[in-house]
This record gives sequence, C-alpha cells and structure tokens, in this order.
Amino acid sequence: MHSPTDAASTDGCFALVVAYLFDINQGLPTLCVFAVPQYPASGGLVIEPFERVSSRLLVKTTIFALREDVAKHPHTGAAAPYVIVESPDWVNVIAETEVGEIVLIEQWRHGSRQVELEIPGGLVDPGEDSLAAGARELSEETGYVAASLRVLGEVRPNPAFMDNRCTTILATGCRQLHAPNLDHDEDIAIRTVSRDELVRLVDDGTIAHSVVLCAIYRWLRGVA
Amino acid sequence: MHSPTDAASTDGCFALVVAYLFDINQGLPTLCVFAVPQYPASGGLVIEPFERVSSRLLVKTTIFALREDVAKHPHTGAAAPYVIVESPDWVNVIAETEVGEIVLIEQWRHGSRQVELEIPGGLVDPGEDSLAAGARELSEETGYVAASLRVLGEVRPNPAFMDNRCTTILATGCRQLHAPNLDHDEDIAIRTVSRDELVRLVDDGTIAHSVVLCAIYRWLRGVA
Repeated sequence: MHSPTDAASTDGCFALVVAYLFDINQGLPTLCVFAVPQYPASGGLVIEPFERVSSRLLVKTTIFALREDVAKHPHTGAAAPYVIVESPDWVNVIAETEVGEIVLIEQWRHGSRQVELEIPGGLVDPGEDSLAAGARELSEETGYVAASLRVLGEVRPNPAFMDNRCTTILATGCRQLHAPNLDHDEDIAIRTVSRDELVRLVDDGTIAHSVVLCAIYRWLRGVA
Repeated sequence: MHSPTDAASTDGCFALVVAYLFDINQGLPTLCVFAVPQYPASGGLVIEPFERVSSRLLVKTTIFALREDVAKHPHTGAAAPYVIVESPDWVNVIAETEVGEIVLIEQWRHGSRQVELEIPGGLVDPGEDSLAAGARELSEETGYVAASLRVLGEVRPNPAFMDNRCTTILATGCRQLHAPNLDHDEDIAIRTVSRDELVRLVDDGTIAHSVVLCAIYRWLRGVA
C-alpha cells in the first residue's frame, strides 16, 4: 500500500516527512507532506509537564490508595482526569546462594489467580532503606540470610498510573539459616535454580511478572 | 555470625535445614534444625490456589476498575481481603525502522509526574487482537506503519494485584507515513535510536518503565 518515504529532518522539534501513499482503491500515488514532533538530536526534552490543578482521594486500601488528579495539557490547556495508584516503594531481591544458585519463590497471586514463580520481595516499610527492606523480605519469605547486599538497579513499576519505584537488591553468599516467617495470608514455597535454569524459566515465559523479569534481566546483563 | 550450614534434602515438599548459628553476644555456637517448604526437584507445584469466597467492585474509572476479593488460605482456611486492579490487556511495540533504528516516544506520565522515554503502546480494544492493537497504537502515537508484525512475548504487568497481560509486538520495516493521531489528552514526541543507543538508555536507567524494559530486554536477547 505504501511506496518509499523520503528522509525526515531531525533538526529541531519537528520532522518534515514526505511520503508517497499508494491508494489501493484508486490505484493512484498521493504525495503527502506532514510535520511530526521529534526528540531533538541534542537529547533535550520537548515534552512539557502537565499542570496538576486538583487532586482527590478515590479509595484507600490496606496496600495502596487510588487518587484522581485533574491536569492541564501543556499546549491545549484542556483539563482531564487521571487516576493514580499511590503505593509504597517496592523492593525485590536477586539472592545468590553460596553455591551460585538463585532463590525463587512460588506463590498464589490474586491478580492473575494462578501460582507464579518469582523472586523474594515486598513493600518497603516507612523509614526503611531499600537494602534493609530487601534483607528483611528475603529473610521473612525464605529464611535466607546474605553475606553481602547491594543495589542492582531501580525501575518504575508503571509510571503511567503508579507513583512508586521498585529497587532490586543483589544479595550474595546467601544461606538458609532459619524457617520463613510468613504473614498470616502468605503461602510460599522455595526453590533454588542454577543460572542456566533461570534463563530457561525467563525465556519460556514461566517467570511472567514484569518487575521480577526486569530484576533478572539486569542481573543477567551484569549491569551494576 | 554464621558457621557452615548443612545440606538440605529437596525430596518432597520440605527441606530439613541444619545450621550452626554463632551467637555474637554469648560467643556460643547453637545447633538449629528447621523444616522449610520447598519446590520439589520434580518441578511439580506445591502451592495450592486460594479459594475466592466473595468479590465486590470498589470503584470504576475510565481506564480500570478496583475490586476486592475475599479469599481463603488453602491451609489455614482463614479468609482475607485482596484488592485487584481490573484492566484491559495492554500491548507495546518494538518498532524497527527500515534502517534498523528503534522508535521511542517521550511523554508526560501522571504516575511518576515526569517525562518518560518509552516505546509505543496502549490498551487493547474489546475484540481486538494484540497484533492489530500494536499496529494501531504504533500508527496513532507515531505515524509509523510496519511492513511486518509478530508477537515477541507476553508478561504479566503485576500478577500480585493486576489481572491483565501485556503482549510485546515486534514491528519491522517501519516507515513514518503519516502524522500521529493523538488522543486529546496525549502529548507525545518521537525519537529513533540505534540499538547501541537503546542499550545505553536501558543500562543507565533513562528508560525506567518495567513493562517497556521487559519488551526491550526480550528483543535484545533475540528470544522469539
């Protein structure tokens, strides 16, 4: 349906695109010229903030709150509502055992309504730093204790409508030193896998939780 | 603080762990024996479903609904509430241009309240398949049209409290053939980057959205 597109300029904030569109109904080529906002070659940002004009709480649950912001489009000035999930920050843990295996947990998840294979993790408590939260969640969920802990990276679980971050902790030299100390509503089984087995579980889709996958992918890439 | 841990049996659903804990206050080693539920070597699941005993809608927004399920622990039988975000499935798109660059979009995100660098994507419409949704979102947000589309993979954005999936579409031979057709409340700038530049933006944390990162990591690994 489409014939060759001409080059687009990327100087400045707009690209001028020249395209020959071939209309399959009429069999005629049509010259089309249009401008598209572009991220400038210099790397500067061209998108401006939306101004928040009001905010209200919709509902508060034990884990998160739902709020609605009304914000104004920076160019049109039109105000529209946006729903945001307010949540504490999260932490998750790549725990390497002393023999180089990774600690996984299996648990029932009420969102997907199935058993998921994940890495240990949870909410960061008020005032707690992410390393302490990682060590605590690892210990509570699995009974493993690390010889050493460091921050491996951070992601936004979903910046479109969530305000929190998730920090991945790399825990090395882990050893299972006590029984898990689960919350009353948790039911968790523990498994350790080799790096090769972990790669297989990622690549075949068995491990499906996006935030868990980000942690594992970053660890596999060896990025500090 | 800890001296060597003995081997743990992984036959069956429990591991017997024998640890010598060295108490730093008293200077005395303490023998500790405990049982920990394990994922069996056979790979079978040991975690059982929680039975859902009731469900109610908390609030409905334009994009998603919040519901509360009460579910019973499979072993204790205790019922507890779980909040679930019901959302349509999502789709996101790794769009390779004809010269092998990747199409990124820059947009203001109301959750993080900052500009984020992401890949095109959005909600799958009712009755729409993920390939069609990917092509549509790519076209609407960027004006790019693909020569070829295929499913690259699927993740659960967050199975703990979300019921939806996100499918990543690989769109190849993409060409910008028309201006974007944005929703009234969108403001998007477009940027194309080389594979090397994309890797840099992932590794340095500029791209922070977990579901976007999952798509890029999977594409970088070349897993179909």
